[in-house]
Amino acid sequence: MSDTATLLTRRAQLLGPNMTTFYDDPVHIVRGEGTWLWDADGNRFLDCYNNVPHVGHAHPKVVQAITDQAATLNTHTRYLHEGILDYGERLTATMGNDLDTMIMVCTGSEANDIALRMGRAVTGKTGIICTDNTYHGNTDLVSHLSAKKTPIGGAVDWVRKVPSPDAIEPLGGSHEAQAQAFADEIQTAINALEADGHGFGTLILCPFFANEGFPDLPKGFLDPTVDVVRRAGGIIIADEVQPGFGRTGRNFWGHERIGLVPDIVTMGKPMGNGHPVAAVVTRPEIMAEFRNRFGYFNTFGGNPVSAAAAMAVLDVLEEEQLVENARDTGDYALGLLGQLDHPMIADVRGAGLFLGVEFARDGNTEAAADFCAKLVDDMRHRGVLLHSVGRHYHGIKIRPPMCFDCAQADFLVETLDDALKALPV
Amino acid sequence: MSDTATLLTRRAQLLGPNMTTFYDDPVHIVRGEGTWLWDADGNRFLDCYNNVPHVGHAHPKVVQAITDQAATLNTHTRYLHEGILDYGERLTATMGNDLDTMIMVCTGSEANDIALRMGRAVTGKTGIICTDNTYHGNTDLVSHLSAKKTPIGGAVDWVRKVPSPDAIEPLGGSHEAQAQAFADEIQTAINALEADGHGFGTLILCPFFANEGFPDLPKGFLDPTVDVVRRAGGIIIADEVQPGFGRTGRNFWGHERIGLVPDIVTMGKPMGNGHPVAAVVTRPEIMAEFRNRFGYFNTFGGNPVSAAAAMAVLDVLEEEQLVENARDTGDYALGLLGQLDHPMIADVRGAGLFLGVEFARDGNTEAAADFCAKLVDDMRHRGVLLHSVGRHYHGIKIRPPMCFDCAQADFLVETLDDALKALPV
Repeated sequence: MSDTATLLTRRAQLLGPNMTTFYDDPVHIVRGEGTWLWDADGNRFLDCYNNVPHVGHAHPKVVQAITDQAATLNTHTRYLHEGILDYGERLTATMGNDLDTMIMVCTGSEANDIALRMGRAVTGKTGIICTDNTYHGNTDLVSHLSAKKTPIGGAVDWVRKVPSPDAIEPLGGSHEAQAQAFADEIQTAINALEADGHGFGTLILCPFFANEGFPDLPKGFLDPTVDVVRRAGGIIIADEVQPGFGRTGRNFWGHERIGLVPDIVTMGKPMGNGHPVAAVVTRPEIMAEFRNRFGYFNTFGGNPVSAAAAMAVLDVLEEEQLVENARDTGDYALGLLGQLDHPMIADVRGAGLFLGVEFARDGNTEAAADFCAKLVDDMRHRGVLLHSVGRHYHGIKIRPPMCFDCAQADFLVETLDDALKALPV
Repeated sequence: MSDTATLLTRRAQLLGPNMTTFYDDPVHIVRGEGTWLWDADGNRFLDCYNNVPHVGHAHPKVVQAITDQAATLNTHTRYLHEGILDYGERLTATMGNDLDTMIMVCTGSEANDIALRMGRAVTGKTGIICTDNTYHGNTDLVSHLSAKKTPIGGAVDWVRKVPSPDAIEPLGGSHEAQAQAFADEIQTAINALEADGHGFGTLILCPFFANEGFPDLPKGFLDPTVDVVRRAGGIIIADEVQPGFGRTGRNFWGHERIGLVPDIVTMGKPMGNGHPVAAVVTRPEIMAEFRNRFGYFNTFGGNPVSAAAAMAVLDVLEEEQLVENARDTGDYALGLLGQLDHPMIADVRGAGLFLGVEFARDGNTEAAADFCAKLVDDMRHRGVLLHSVGRHYHGIKIRPPMCFDCAQADFLVETLDDALKALPV
């Protein structure tokens, strides 16, 4: 058997069915550095997809921080340690709006599981609203918000899903009308939750609507939504797992970019450059309400090594000016993508180093998921790692480590151009 | 302000209220090595409590494994990698009974959250039974099993809590009668869940009953319980977060020790020596049922660094014969503890390096939690870190890193003897 076949067999036996791999020919990655990955045969891939290695694969400063702290001490927060405090104070200083208390956990799922319970604790209501094409994690509670994975036990009626902005056309091209239509959908869901006796407690959304295909939305788009939620006495969670930590180039947080002031912010994936660390940040009164009602303690949460890894990520972001790089390289790449000439390109959009190209047939009316899947596979064989995104998986998601540079953007777009020319439409 | 006061103030501001620290005078730990910890003033403490640094604080082999892998590659399981496979095959080889499929996650809470959903997926029933003095984690779902922390939203009636064995006296000294009484309690809970329309799906327990004060129970104690659960078509989860990985000295798993064959095994804390890693192990048909119904994916779960950390723990356990050490040093320490002479010592018990001394007044009838708390604080000032355990927190829990040696056992028991002589009864 080939190496790949052997590994797939071992995976199926050990991990069970439905353990999806990327690509028709799964990649056996053995090494990473910066924006590059190498497979077991020595083939090199430009990583245009992975946001977890935020400051670059195997970044030496993050590795050193983890090593130094692991060699010194790793223990829990029943003892005093500066690590969690130094990190949390620096993290929350990026936010303002009284968002200055924090719980550190290990995964974005754990963060959202807590955030939703904070919403319940503060409002006393169980009703949750999310979009109809989202993903916020995989605990039992959070899995009820997923659009594409039916939770064990089936759907619950205290979660209501509203059409996300990508599914609401700007009426007459007006973002104001689209923003109001989105808020109206939320009002309708609030009314339904109240009528069914659950009450409305919490709206959770990714402020970049990343899984929804990150439609272009102007600053202030969520203002009518905020009004509706505030009038109903609800809480807003901004899930920053994808747009956070400068990914979109001009703002450190996705909620700043869209002009939203959330009550609770959750974060995960990029926070420790791959080390399992995540967090919930909120205002002191929400934290107090939650913590006084439930004495949350997480053994691994905020341990000195996790704090050191997360701190090193903030250091590298600053030292290497990676948010600025996301802005400049992102603008450059977006410009190049906009010059691609192909009949099925329906849209090119994004912000910073979170970009996408959408494909459709028949004059932009039929989402071309099959074409997009073939393109992603073809690009893998050309040495560029991408993946699909959006309601119909008809867009490619370009979301490389933040050290992605203009030469790499050139290589990506040239390769994409070659692939598009070679693929039957 | 003193260093401690400053840190406590910063904690309160950043982390919110109800962030408990151990001891009247919280310890500011800055360094660890083996079984020793040092505070910021250079004071050394013998760590007789922490099970997370399983093979010893800052073990160089684990640190090296983490460093080497983090410097090479850290990514997720949508790509192929040997790390998770090599580890999972080795881990499941310790179990037998067809327990040979695995999901890797980041915390014991995540593991139990999945395990409970596996029980639901397989049985189609929502009812869960646990003991009335347990703790299995802190996600929304798992928090409903906690005896001492009321979940947000209050208790749910699809969780039933049975008196744990420590609360059931061996009738006429007979463990058989006690075992049957425990099984009878579970049968009563099953009947109630069925009557209330939830149905009975899953029994979850720590096979060492660690949070219940680890009462001395013979092998086979759970046989009547297993009969009752099997007759009702239920699933049994063994939560090995505390007794697993050889902690009890004569068995690698707590369920082996008590002679239980569980359907699902969960593990966490000691698995990566402090690195956030945890796992669920089960039989292939249960895994398939769960994974086919819910396409679980955990970004950090089973990443190469976590797998390397966990693998290094298994390596060190073998190379340093730490399970054998837990048996021998544990026996030695238990013998010494048994020789302590104090009117309030009600019981001395445990297995391997999981030992306890219970305190009571009035001829063993009144649990002496206050005395125990004072003793724990006093020992901290004498340089030995312990904590309390049990239904009334009237026992001290002795659960040091697995490299604890006989000289350290001597120091522990001598110090305990001094403290007991000095403390007013």
